[in-house]
Amino acid sequence: MNGVNDEPIAPQTFLYGCVLQAGKEVVFNPEDDDFEHQLDLRMACVDPSTKDELQVVEVEGQNSEEEQVKATLASLKPSTLPSVCLGGFTITPPAVFRLKAGSGPVHISGQHLIMMGGDESFGEDSEEEEEEE
Amino acid sequence: MNGVNDEPIAPQTFLYGCVLQAGKEVVFNPEDDDFEHQLDLRMACVDPSTKDELQVVEVEGQNSEEEQVKATLASLKPSTLPSVCLGGFTITPPAVFRLKAGSGPVHISGQHLIMMGGDESFGEDSEEEEEEE
Amino acid sequence: MNGVNDEPIAPQTFLYGCVLQAGKEVVFNPEDDDFEHQLDLRMACVDPSTKDELQVVEVEGQNSEEEQVKATLASLKPSTLPSVCLGGFTITPPAVFRLKAGSGPVHISGQHLIMMGGDESFGEDSEEEEEEE
Amino acid sequence: MNGVNDEPIAPQTFLYGCVLQAGKEVVFNPEDDDFEHQLDLRMACVDPSTKDELQVVEVEGQNSEEEQVKATLASLKPSTLPSVCLGGFTITPPAVFRLKAGSGPVHISGQHLIMMGGDESFGEDSEEEEEEE
Amino acid sequence: MNGVNDEPIAPQTFLYGCVLQAGKEVVFNPEDDDFEHQLDLRMACVDPSTKDELQVVEVEGQNSEEEQVKATLASLKPSTLPSVCLGGFTITPPAVFRLKAGSGPVHISGQHLIMMGGDESFGEDSEEEEEEE
Repeated sequence: MNGVNDEPIAPQTFLYGCVLQAGKEVVFNPEDDDFEHQLDLRMACVDPSTKDELQVVEVEGQNSEEEQVKATLASLKPSTLPSVCLGGFTITPPAVFRLKAGSGPVHISGQHLIMMGGDESFGEDSEEEEEEE
Repeated sequence: MNGVNDEPIAPQTFLYGCVLQAGKEVVFNPEDDDFEHQLDLRMACVDPSTKDELQVVEVEGQNSEEEQVKATLASLKPSTLPSVCLGGFTITPPAVFRLKAGSGPVHISGQHLIMMGGDESFGEDSEEEEEEE
Repeated sequence: MNGVNDEPIAPQTFLYGCVLQAGKEVVFNPEDDDFEHQLDLRMACVDPSTKDELQVVEVEGQNSEEEQVKATLASLKPSTLPSVCLGGFTITPPAVFRLKAGSGPVHISGQHLIMMGGDESFGEDSEEEEEEE
Repeated sequence: MNGVNDEPIAPQTFLYGCVLQAGKEVVFNPEDDDFEHQLDLRMACVDPSTKDELQVVEVEGQNSEEEQVKATLASLKPSTLPSVCLGGFTITPPAVFRLKAGSGPVHISGQHLIMMGGDESFGEDSEEEEEEE
Repeated sequence: MNGVNDEPIAPQTFLYGCVLQAGKEVVFNPEDDDFEHQLDLRMACVDPSTKDELQVVEVEGQNSEEEQVKATLASLKPSTLPSVCLGGFTITPPAVFRLKAGSGPVHISGQHLIMMGGDESFGEDSEEEEEEE
């Protein structure tokens, strides 16, 4: 059920994982390759070295009005909730992950989906957001 | 998974996030633009500044008999459950989010889906976001 | 190609919420309107007024052999687990929700889906559970 | 959304629930009726009478090499985690549920899906459940 | 009509379970059999014998740039969070599961999906499992 979609060619699924620490943000912005990229986030987890304080993970991306907005992905605390399911939170690039509170480390994981051929005429000269030249 | 639908054109996915505090409700009611809007809610999370009392998030929307109804989205407490997965709770506009108990802040996040071309006769004068030039 | 969808018309999504208390059961049995009804349950949540004892939510419905059966939807306790994701638990009518333990209140929420036109010839004289003659 | 599949006819959804206790295993093996059966498990929950020790639910079924294998469905403890979402864990028959640790009771619930007409040549002499008359 | 499905043949679903212990990693790499294999992970659970320390499960697989990467699947602690839903975390082979912290045992479970006939020209000499007679 999860792997099934309606595209002509099913998306390819890769493993995605990153680690967040205070002052170290992680950017998700795959290089421009004519394919559609998407993260389906599954889990946020603390580490044995994570300090026992509230760790709040924030993602910054684009809302429907093309403004940069911040949303809170997860709040974890080692002694209370060491991991939480993110339930397939879909992130479209460009996006930035960072800790809004706590010093981490907090691990984020999920799948990186690459959709090829979402449109039949797709590969020809479609340039999505790339008005290059 | 949730973002996949069977419409001729796949929905566009944007980031959605809001913050609830006592006395501050948040309305989800995108302007009338001929597109179908939907929220797929993923997470509810407390903040380091959230007081350690039960925080109850309520959504108000329309039931199947076109009456305004209230439903409870999540009950969080910083020392017990700092975040919870909402599992793709689908909200169709108009809807209002508010705290029914607790003074917050509580963060709600997920995806804002915009379905274009749900109807064949739909694309007539719809121009997506590309009125450039 | 993906111009084809599973149902001729996508289901309509409405907000569903109910509150369970000791001795007060809630029936889900929409009136017979030729449409197919379904609940996708998302969350079960306690309230600030919920006593700190185990609250067990039960649903009664039909199993595959057309017998009435009971199933346990969620076990919550304010000081341990104030809310839990039900992950899209699908309920088809008729169904009854009640507390099997605890005095509540416990809130149940999710989506009420109404499938229209699941079959082309649908509205004519099809009566689903057809005790005809 | 979860109950939707790509088969010619949508699966029928019934309620499934069972109770596990020490020494009492539950078999899921619907009689051979030409239909495809599947469980989508949603929740595992303790009961007020469940002893406060770790309750470990195990399922035994077939792996991809047609060997009998055991997998762990959930670990619950009344004072720590009284219920957990199983997220649609799909079980195909034959399968057996049992407690691997703890004396229960532990409740398992979800949907029993029956796929009719997964194959075109399927409907020939299949009569659903209605040989009445 | 809905006689069309995305994959010529729906994937077959098998039970998957493994146990992780310190120093014992588990490889998921089905033999090359022309079919597409995938794990949909559902649950991570501790055992009564699991020591009360943070157990961190790591998966190693391939990212979108064909590099080996590690991602954190779950962080469990018997006295805090004895099991967590992984929400259908999709793993494509080859992948390796191991404990990054803690000595286990930790149980991982879910479904092993085998997609047959993802391509039309695929079925030529594929004989499923029916060399009987």
